Amino acid sequence: MGVILSEDFLKVKRVPERAVSDRDQLFQILDAGKIIHIGFVDDNHPVVIPLAYVRDGERILLHGSTGSRLFRTLAAGAQLCATVTLLDGIVAARSAFNSSMNYRSVLIFGKATLLSDEYKDEALEKFTNNLIPERWQEVRKMTNKEKAATMVLSVPLETISGKVRVGGPADEEDSDLELPIWAGHIPIISVYGEPIAAENLSDDIDVPQSIKNMK
Amino acid sequence: MGVILSEDFLKVKRVPERAVSDRDQLFQILDAGKIIHIGFVDDNHPVVIPLAYVRDGERILLHGSTGSRLFRTLAAGAQLCATVTLLDGIVAARSAFNSSMNYRSVLIFGKATLLSDEYKDEALEKFTNNLIPERWQEVRKMTNKEKAATMVLSVPLETISGKVRVGGPADEEDSDLELPIWAGHIPIISVYGEPIAAENLSDDIDVPQSIKNMK
Repeated sequence: MGVILSEDFLKVKRVPERAVSDRDQLFQILDAGKIIHIGFVDDNHPVVIPLAYVRDGERILLHGSTGSRLFRTLAAGAQLCATVTLLDGIVAARSAFNSSMNYRSVLIFGKATLLSDEYKDEALEKFTNNLIPERWQEVRKMTNKEKAATMVLSVPLETISGKVRVGGPADEEDSDLELPIWAGHIPIISVYGEPIAAENLSDDIDVPQSIKNMK
Repeated sequence: MGVILSEDFLKVKRVPERAVSDRDQLFQILDAGKIIHIGFVDDNHPVVIPLAYVRDGERILLHGSTGSRLFRTLAAGAQLCATVTLLDGIVAARSAFNSSMNYRSVLIFGKATLLSDEYKDEALEKFTNNLIPERWQEVRKMTNKEKAATMVLSVPLETISGKVRVGGPADEEDSDLELPIWAGHIPIISVYGEPIAAENLSDDIDVPQSIKNMK
């Protein structure tokens, strides 16, 4: 079902846009993102919520509060569609019609399952290091109270599809190609700014290597 | 209905995260984004698709192919939830539990309506200039054939809500604040790279002012 849906909604329309079915490439897109949009149906109404996520092999992990209605709904087995989109650039075509954006996206269809308590430390290590590589070894670990307040969900990467647009504009007509109009694309790059220390941080604590490494 | 849903799912959990109800602030978030995640229900299954969008006063506009199943579904009046999320930074707390991200997000609940042909030029002008300010005056305008192949949908900004997290970590316990662990946040900034000319562009066409202005 999910595969049919996604192939239908994500079918390739023209050359610079292409469906991606290679799992390694889909996983690379998931590994490059930080935010996933979780869609589910609540009382016949669609709801789309942004969440943090991390890929863990053949699944993604989500974490939230045990008091969250969203997490309780997902843990109860609601069908979901989880989408990650990375914006890579603006495409300036000679025509308004062919103006576009470069992006990479992955859709995941399925259901979440609740991870048991014994995997919560491992999951939070993955979340922490996904935000800042090697950060886990520096931070204070979870207390039992924090563990009890945290729900970790797993969504299998079984029914997934992707779509990628790369490169320049799709102008094809000779009459367009002969126009004296600049065409090309402008990459969009996300960069980290300088770390900003917390207001209540002691002056004698230096920025750690993990955060210096973020470029 | 939408308001209840969104307030429930987006309720404020702690100080650095807060619900946003000021319409000007919600509109600013929408104006800063380029990609919206459209969620709808297809045969009882949620589907979340990334699309380009532009805010036009008290509504957002979407455009796509008349052959697109997604656009036909939305034009037929499917209930939708459209979500824009901007990732602003990584929050490095002293504890794994308080590690987080800074972001701005807006949820829109409603239904799309189809714009008539006479508004398509105006809509495409808004899309084009949203990608690259002032670009519309440079590009080749839409042909009648292109107009016939394009569907423009409008979604009213009636039932909307937002959530924003800004600033440093939420460490509160004295035992955490006394730890010799660096805490703070690292901004994420999106920047434009150098424009890359299309392979088939004549050498005598310079980068126009509109694109030089993108910083």
